[in-house]
Amino acid sequence: MSSKPLDYENLNENVKKCQYAVRGELYLRASELQKEGKKIIFTNVGNPHALGQKPLTFPRQVVALCQAPFLLDDPNVGLVFPADAIARAKHYLSITSGGLGAYSDSRGIPGIRKEVAEFIERRDGYPSDPELIFLTDGASKGIMQILNTIIRGAGDGILVPVPQYPLYSATISLFGGTLVPYYLEETANWGLDVIDLRQSVAQARFKGITVRAMVIINPGNPTGQCLSEANLKEILRFCYQENLVLLGDEVYQQNIYQDERPFISARKVLMDMGPPISKEIQLVSFHTVSKGYWGECGQRGGYFEMTNISPKSVEEIYKVTSISLSPNVPAQIFMGLMVNPPKPGDISYERFVRESKGILESLRKRAHIMTDGFNSCRNVVCNFTEGAMYSFPQIRLPPKAIEAAKKAGKVPDVFYCLKLLEATGISTVPGSGFGQKEGVFHLRTTILPAEEDMAAIMSSFKNFNDAFMEQYEDHKGYSRM
Amino acid sequence: MSSKPLDYENLNENVKKCQYAVRGELYLRASELQKEGKKIIFTNVGNPHALGQKPLTFPRQVVALCQAPFLLDDPNVGLVFPADAIARAKHYLSITSGGLGAYSDSRGIPGIRKEVAEFIERRDGYPSDPELIFLTDGASKGIMQILNTIIRGAGDGILVPVPQYPLYSATISLFGGTLVPYYLEETANWGLDVIDLRQSVAQARFKGITVRAMVIINPGNPTGQCLSEANLKEILRFCYQENLVLLGDEVYQQNIYQDERPFISARKVLMDMGPPISKEIQLVSFHTVSKGYWGECGQRGGYFEMTNISPKSVEEIYKVTSISLSPNVPAQIFMGLMVNPPKPGDISYERFVRESKGILESLRKRAHIMTDGFNSCRNVVCNFTEGAMYSFPQIRLPPKAIEAAKKAGKVPDVFYCLKLLEATGISTVPGSGFGQKEGVFHLRTTILPAEEDMAAIMSSFKNFNDAFMEQYEDHKGYSRM
Repeated sequence: MSSKPLDYENLNENVKKCQYAVRGELYLRASELQKEGKKIIFTNVGNPHALGQKPLTFPRQVVALCQAPFLLDDPNVGLVFPADAIARAKHYLSITSGGLGAYSDSRGIPGIRKEVAEFIERRDGYPSDPELIFLTDGASKGIMQILNTIIRGAGDGILVPVPQYPLYSATISLFGGTLVPYYLEETANWGLDVIDLRQSVAQARFKGITVRAMVIINPGNPTGQCLSEANLKEILRFCYQENLVLLGDEVYQQNIYQDERPFISARKVLMDMGPPISKEIQLVSFHTVSKGYWGECGQRGGYFEMTNISPKSVEEIYKVTSISLSPNVPAQIFMGLMVNPPKPGDISYERFVRESKGILESLRKRAHIMTDGFNSCRNVVCNFTEGAMYSFPQIRLPPKAIEAAKKAGKVPDVFYCLKLLEATGISTVPGSGFGQKEGVFHLRTTILPAEEDMAAIMSSFKNFNDAFMEQYEDHKGYSRM
Repeated sequence: MSSKPLDYENLNENVKKCQYAVRGELYLRASELQKEGKKIIFTNVGNPHALGQKPLTFPRQVVALCQAPFLLDDPNVGLVFPADAIARAKHYLSITSGGLGAYSDSRGIPGIRKEVAEFIERRDGYPSDPELIFLTDGASKGIMQILNTIIRGAGDGILVPVPQYPLYSATISLFGGTLVPYYLEETANWGLDVIDLRQSVAQARFKGITVRAMVIINPGNPTGQCLSEANLKEILRFCYQENLVLLGDEVYQQNIYQDERPFISARKVLMDMGPPISKEIQLVSFHTVSKGYWGECGQRGGYFEMTNISPKSVEEIYKVTSISLSPNVPAQIFMGLMVNPPKPGDISYERFVRESKGILESLRKRAHIMTDGFNSCRNVVCNFTEGAMYSFPQIRLPPKAIEAAKKAGKVPDVFYCLKLLEATGISTVPGSGFGQKEGVFHLRTTILPAEEDMAAIMSSFKNFNDAFMEQYEDHKGYSRM
């Protein structure tokens, strides 16, 4: 029989082209080792609950009650659930169209989209329209949908920061577009230089690419930097001049570990700039319940908000959304709770604040322990994690290590990360999965291991790294920075 | 300023081309009328809980406990949850990698994929491999992913039954492929004729299309027919001869309302046929927690199972799945519970059986009430709903009605359904949204309104329809069948 439609050689080429390193070779090897009985520390993906972070109690109580609405009539319900959780569950059930088991509006439950709009207004100081907010099964799904709406073919370019979160490179491949990289500057704390941006666009144009959109990840993934207001203004001016949609990946907006540069949304800066820019630039902003101090990754909840997008285009996006009927309803409720948490005076307020503060303060400590740990290692330099959930140290691999990697048929940083994994059980992602300048190597790890395990993990990393460097260094020079 | 990247004229053409009638013009108009205060009966989409179906108690108890794991240590938990639900919740939590808040394996939790494989083995009598089962956010998402894997461009054709569920037409448009229709024969109880199939393929080839896959929906949506074993064998032989992947949409496999043709899976028939066919035909089968007597649409849970797909292709599908990290975890637990419900002797067994039987028996009654109701109307003929959740009556529109529709700028069945909506509040989907033979008109309604409301709904329909026919009929002839 001739080759079959789902044989490898006959698959959609775009499917074959896309790469997603966060669950790539390193992750697959780690899963194998785990099956063989080795203890693996999965720091490849920002998955806080998998590393022991406890869920916030109040939102879980509310969603549990929504899943079991018959409990609301149970005389004993008050013995196991607080009154404010019961009231909130009743409220959410009253605005669904049949509880958690019914498809909602494809854009999400109107009442929850209103809560999101109110949250954005409180955050930014400008009104937000619930009709321009769509709830999604996690931020990734929303980003994929918007990219699918923009990309018409290989001639369409999307500006993506490098290093980047590989959702972008994978999705652009999958939809047959072209990734146009712009480099973040490691020596300037992963800052973004508009002159570089202009060069990237000029080069792409020269190749016949129409650059149509620009992605920013703020706070940065994998790089952890927080963009300043001045930098965001420059970016918006640039988008205005170049007629680009700005995609603002702001999923880490609650994860800030320094006080100099608090999170500021692209939308607020845009509105602050006033007309004509504030009326012209098309912006889509993304958020999630998976990050922050919530970390509810497994629930798959997110939203996107559209600014300056015409009703006719919003309608098209709505139409495509409706093909898969509705985002999952439980995660919509988590989103409602995230943007509208318990208030002072509520029974659950103090507990909620204690739990969320505890998580954020611990993350801040862990960000410091990790950066300091990496910087104490031979041939490793690391910028501080200002925000998000990752540390992205540069590993200065000696020429002999690069040679050894070549012999083993591996990219040098993959070679290093595999050795690290085998020696210590620490599962990271090589910098090549995110993109990096030629000849420079990194790895990404989350800052999520439990605070009490952190010292041991960093010491295990240091032992491995320093021995690795000892083995491969010729004691004459480093690989270039 | 020139037109902007997300202005309508600049969007991806494939996005603009796709149509999804289930939430199209009729649904939007119904939503408007509802806002204006009109009572709307939403029968446009198979969304049982939205029409009052109660969720099954046991699975909701288990998932509620998984959402609130702290309850498992609460001394009062036994007052509100039965012991078997508590035990099951503990079991599921023990096989997650951090509870419902953690991303799972991108293919779904291994232990639940094993439960699905065991269910398939019990159902079909042939072993099933959990490694070839991927859990998804509802069946639609799985179908979209597989079509994206198959379709390389406009030269790739997918055989789709007409009338069809518009997920298929919309998705094929979105991914830039070509839909190759094959017609189901209304006068033969919506049966499938292999001679017709052959003609469809020949015509497509003549146009330069490579037909690569065939979709069957069994039980049928919107047509409600159950495919016989003999028919399934013909289809499989046809796929073998033509080298097609078979996509088996079997989401309604629990929804059977007659005893002559019980559900039989494409996979069982394939295995029964033995080699070489059983070793050669590539089959992907889809299932969901949204239908059956579960109706847990809002949870967004499903799976697909791959048969005779090479490991290298499975790996590619896994890679693309991993870009959006993981299907939502609560719905994975629903899937585990659906394929592995309470057993005789379990505390919750009797209640579970009572609830599920009650739902199925009532659906069977409603299928009869609806078919009989439609057949009692002037110029309406309707096949019995053998399975699934829909009735798809043919409406024989008089020439004057067709003329009036033309004047109003509407497709004739859209015209009829809009009038029906305005007059009665019954929100249906016109047959043109599913495809139908030229000059023949239908509508689709679910059989889901509550049993006690059914008589009133059908009588309201009859009043509208018969008056409509009276108004437009010239008392000389009907539109042709």
